[in-house]
Amino acid sequence: MKATILYGPGDVRVETRDDPKILKPTDAILRLSASCICGSDLWPYRGAQPVEQPVPMGHEYVGVVEEVGSAVRGVKKGQFVVGSFATSDNTCPHCQHGYQSSCVNREFMTGAQAPLLRVSNADGTLVATPGMPDASLIPSLLAVSDVFGTGWFAADAANVKPGATVVVVGDGAVGLLGVLSAKQMGAERIIAMSRHETRTRLAREFGATDVVTERGDEGAKKIRELTNGIGADSVLECVGTQESMWQAIHATRPGGYVSYVGVPHGVSLDGAALFFSHVHLHGGPAPVRRYLPDLIDLVLNGTVNPGKVFDLTLPLEQAAEGYRAMDERRAIKTLLTV
Amino acid sequence: MKATILYGPGDVRVETRDDPKILKPTDAILRLSASCICGSDLWPYRGAQPVEQPVPMGHEYVGVVEEVGSAVRGVKKGQFVVGSFATSDNTCPHCQHGYQSSCVNREFMTGAQAPLLRVSNADGTLVATPGMPDASLIPSLLAVSDVFGTGWFAADAANVKPGATVVVVGDGAVGLLGVLSAKQMGAERIIAMSRHETRTRLAREFGATDVVTERGDEGAKKIRELTNGIGADSVLECVGTQESMWQAIHATRPGGYVSYVGVPHGVSLDGAALFFSHVHLHGGPAPVRRYLPDLIDLVLNGTVNPGKVFDLTLPLEQAAEGYRAMDERRAIKTLLTV
Repeated sequence: MKATILYGPGDVRVETRDDPKILKPTDAILRLSASCICGSDLWPYRGAQPVEQPVPMGHEYVGVVEEVGSAVRGVKKGQFVVGSFATSDNTCPHCQHGYQSSCVNREFMTGAQAPLLRVSNADGTLVATPGMPDASLIPSLLAVSDVFGTGWFAADAANVKPGATVVVVGDGAVGLLGVLSAKQMGAERIIAMSRHETRTRLAREFGATDVVTERGDEGAKKIRELTNGIGADSVLECVGTQESMWQAIHATRPGGYVSYVGVPHGVSLDGAALFFSHVHLHGGPAPVRRYLPDLIDLVLNGTVNPGKVFDLTLPLEQAAEGYRAMDERRAIKTLLTV
Repeated sequence: MKATILYGPGDVRVETRDDPKILKPTDAILRLSASCICGSDLWPYRGAQPVEQPVPMGHEYVGVVEEVGSAVRGVKKGQFVVGSFATSDNTCPHCQHGYQSSCVNREFMTGAQAPLLRVSNADGTLVATPGMPDASLIPSLLAVSDVFGTGWFAADAANVKPGATVVVVGDGAVGLLGVLSAKQMGAERIIAMSRHETRTRLAREFGATDVVTERGDEGAKKIRELTNGIGADSVLECVGTQESMWQAIHATRPGGYVSYVGVPHGVSLDGAALFFSHVHLHGGPAPVRRYLPDLIDLVLNGTVNPGKVFDLTLPLEQAAEGYRAMDERRAIKTLLTV
């Protein structure tokens, strides 16, 4: 089969690889309905994360079960399933607390930019839809497996409640779906921090009531102005840099909540400054599995359409152009047909 | 009057100062029933915090209202009152959210190691007891004004719930009262991290079920061993150093809660490490005012006796010895008669 491989910064190639095989009795093989490129794929693509050997890329996936290992009981051949970028047994103590992305048997997915995919911990990871979903829903179901699940976690970890004033730092796909999630959770005011017209438009469509173009300290100051000097109740940090992290913390009222959902790169938090900010801080790899059943329902019943973040669709063979378009911010998120 | 003044590291003197006067219509003057030395007073005493000019010390206080400013309505001359180390108007948005220690009119108290004290924001800060409390309750009521209120916040910010497994890092007075608070909140298992016999004994009396003497990574490893490899639900960080902070984070299960209630000194948190720890983090100056009514009740009705942390009582004139005893860990906390 063809698959996307990252060789080094800026060097993405589509090459022939062996089809994946069942390696453990708890594995499943999926035939993917679509694949996509994640904002987090841009870290190694941009050289912000070392690439020590060629890496099969992609960790977001939906598709049809092609084969299951001998121990798999929860899903079977022919079912349409959605998974998470982190596989989990869904039975360990961390899973039972709702932190499946810290499962003791966790494996981070890779190799999903391809037509076939091996998924470990199949029973604990995959959730089947009631039937075969309409093709028009595939992009939104694909979004559930990472980017929507992560935006939802961002809103949840930032304690978004009905009536809340919410700020979203970052206008990538996760940030935009953080806006959508906050709206679903009943936020009254949602301030998107963005200076990119296409993204701002989608943020407003997803529920943003205000847009702030300033960044860093200026951005945080603007948020305080917009909130009568108080600061926001909930701030979703969806970038992962030192500047965005402090922008988020400084935009939050004392006692408010900051979530952070992208792997921080080069971020260091001064203990005393954090202390006097008085914020709650919570983040980490999103436990998408916890939310899968509910988010799948929201998509299937037409309540939300997170698939709108895909504003570029390319065949797998043109994955390199998909990376370039996202890197240059010409595209929010690239869907790859496989 | 006599008052305690810190001139520099290790240099505490008791000197004559002018009696405090009403400076603003919202002030009150208290005649203190007792005063004490705080663990946080040791930071500048030890040179870990600069002392740029002689500083009147002390920020914990209970006593009788001697005089009120013209705008004060909530307390009157002759009432016995308890306050907080941070004064607050109790009406601003931050106060209304329960974060009085970030009040827009906040003033950090100082000068309470003396017989008379000016308290700003008197109406928002002081809580009167129903009558004149018995002298035997003075130490516990004094503890409410900072060290018990801070221990309570530590447990609350670490989300201690009935049945929880709780770890307390730090065996100072705040840590010990964190144990007491966790017990009151229904924790099932309370693991005190301490290697000091006097403190360990008091921790057990306050409700600790286990004691761990190891520190740092070894300490965190021991906590995981004691919790079947899972980690604790709630960890109270009551020291404020880099080592204690990571000890706390590494002792917590993914999705668990870490609170930190002492001003961090030299603490820097690596964003990526914090991200993958998956913990909730919350702390800051304890909003003691939020808890005052409830904690005063717990003392007055005899449910708790937080005053037990005072294991040394000295007259104000011997404050310097009180500091030395705490610095050398000969005393947990020094009460000063004024």
